[in-house]
Amino acid sequence: MRGGVISSPWKKSPERKQERALKREAVLAAAAHVFAENGYHRASLDEVARILNVTKPTLYYYFKNKEAMLFACIEHGLEMFRSEASGPSAKAKNGLQRLTAYLKRYAAVIESDFGRCTVRISDSELSEPSSRKIRRIKSEIDRELRQLVADGQADGSIAVTDPQITALALAGALNSIAFWRHQDPDLPVDKTVDEYIHLLVNGLAPRTSQARK
Amino acid sequence: MRGGVISSPWKKSPERKQERALKREAVLAAAAHVFAENGYHRASLDEVARILNVTKPTLYYYFKNKEAMLFACIEHGLEMFRSEASGPSAKAKNGLQRLTAYLKRYAAVIESDFGRCTVRISDSELSEPSSRKIRRIKSEIDRELRQLVADGQADGSIAVTDPQITALALAGALNSIAFWRHQDPDLPVDKTVDEYIHLLVNGLAPRTSQARK
Repeated sequence: MRGGVISSPWKKSPERKQERALKREAVLAAAAHVFAENGYHRASLDEVARILNVTKPTLYYYFKNKEAMLFACIEHGLEMFRSEASGPSAKAKNGLQRLTAYLKRYAAVIESDFGRCTVRISDSELSEPSSRKIRRIKSEIDRELRQLVADGQADGSIAVTDPQITALALAGALNSIAFWRHQDPDLPVDKTVDEYIHLLVNGLAPRTSQARK
Repeated sequence: MRGGVISSPWKKSPERKQERALKREAVLAAAAHVFAENGYHRASLDEVARILNVTKPTLYYYFKNKEAMLFACIEHGLEMFRSEASGPSAKAKNGLQRLTAYLKRYAAVIESDFGRCTVRISDSELSEPSSRKIRRIKSEIDRELRQLVADGQADGSIAVTDPQITALALAGALNSIAFWRHQDPDLPVDKTVDEYIHLLVNGLAPRTSQARK
């Protein structure tokens, strides 16, 4: 046989890299699902391996341990909040409309395994450097939310007085979706998110126009 | 010595019972504090013992293990929600006023160690029978909140449409206080609770009367 016609059963380096990246993503998605369903301590890497149809040692080829997996899941979830929840809202004109659009996208991220994982699992499960990194990303998200509230106040579309506390209350209300969704899987997601956002934007007390009806 | 004048260094049975109950309460309060600060897995019974100035084996005289301690803390916290948050609101006239008064008392319970412990620690840390018992009490609290929303809708003081989802959103927003309070200890509690409740009752969008100002 001549070298030129030998077809190697090993893949070429760029293909291998790509394949490895795809497999790492699959491990991450399976881990996020298992963490979101069970919390950190009850999550079993055997289950992650079972979902992927591999053995547990295979997982360690992608992440050195369970904590590294959790860190990657939370980091990925937070990136989803940053990239999907933020960004311009084409149709939104004032601060309240931009904030409402942001809250809707934020709620959609929370519904995902990565979002639930990010919200449900305390970063106190992580080592101090990892936890610090997570807190830094979280406070960026918090700042963005706070800025939207402040923008709305500036243009008169938002009536609240403290952007910091309001941002915490908004995130807190939406984050709670991650906690009970697995207990009440029958509640329709879209309706739930709409009701949450309606409550936050319009409150419980009837509007004057509604009261007149 | 005649029997009548001997003063026993052992306490009488009713006193012993009372003292034991008091000590059990103290163990529970210390445990709630440590759980609320650290979560379940990071909570150390050594720290609980240190707070009380006793040795760790002394704790086991009151609770058979860490999980039994957590269960008692959560149960106690939920009882606080039931007894302190509910009950009649003397001055409240309509459903919205009764609900607002309820939310204020609910938020005050969340601020306590027992409240934070109840909200922050997932009942998935408990055995199945304990977890079932906790879920039963939680759904009673949820039902009460839902009923208040429904009452307000019935008398026209509340404008929302789905009491179930609204109750979840209200509890979720307030529960979030338990999560960030230890990270932002400088935020004044009363102001925070007032802002949260203002947001939930009045929403973000300005009232017509405010918009006219």
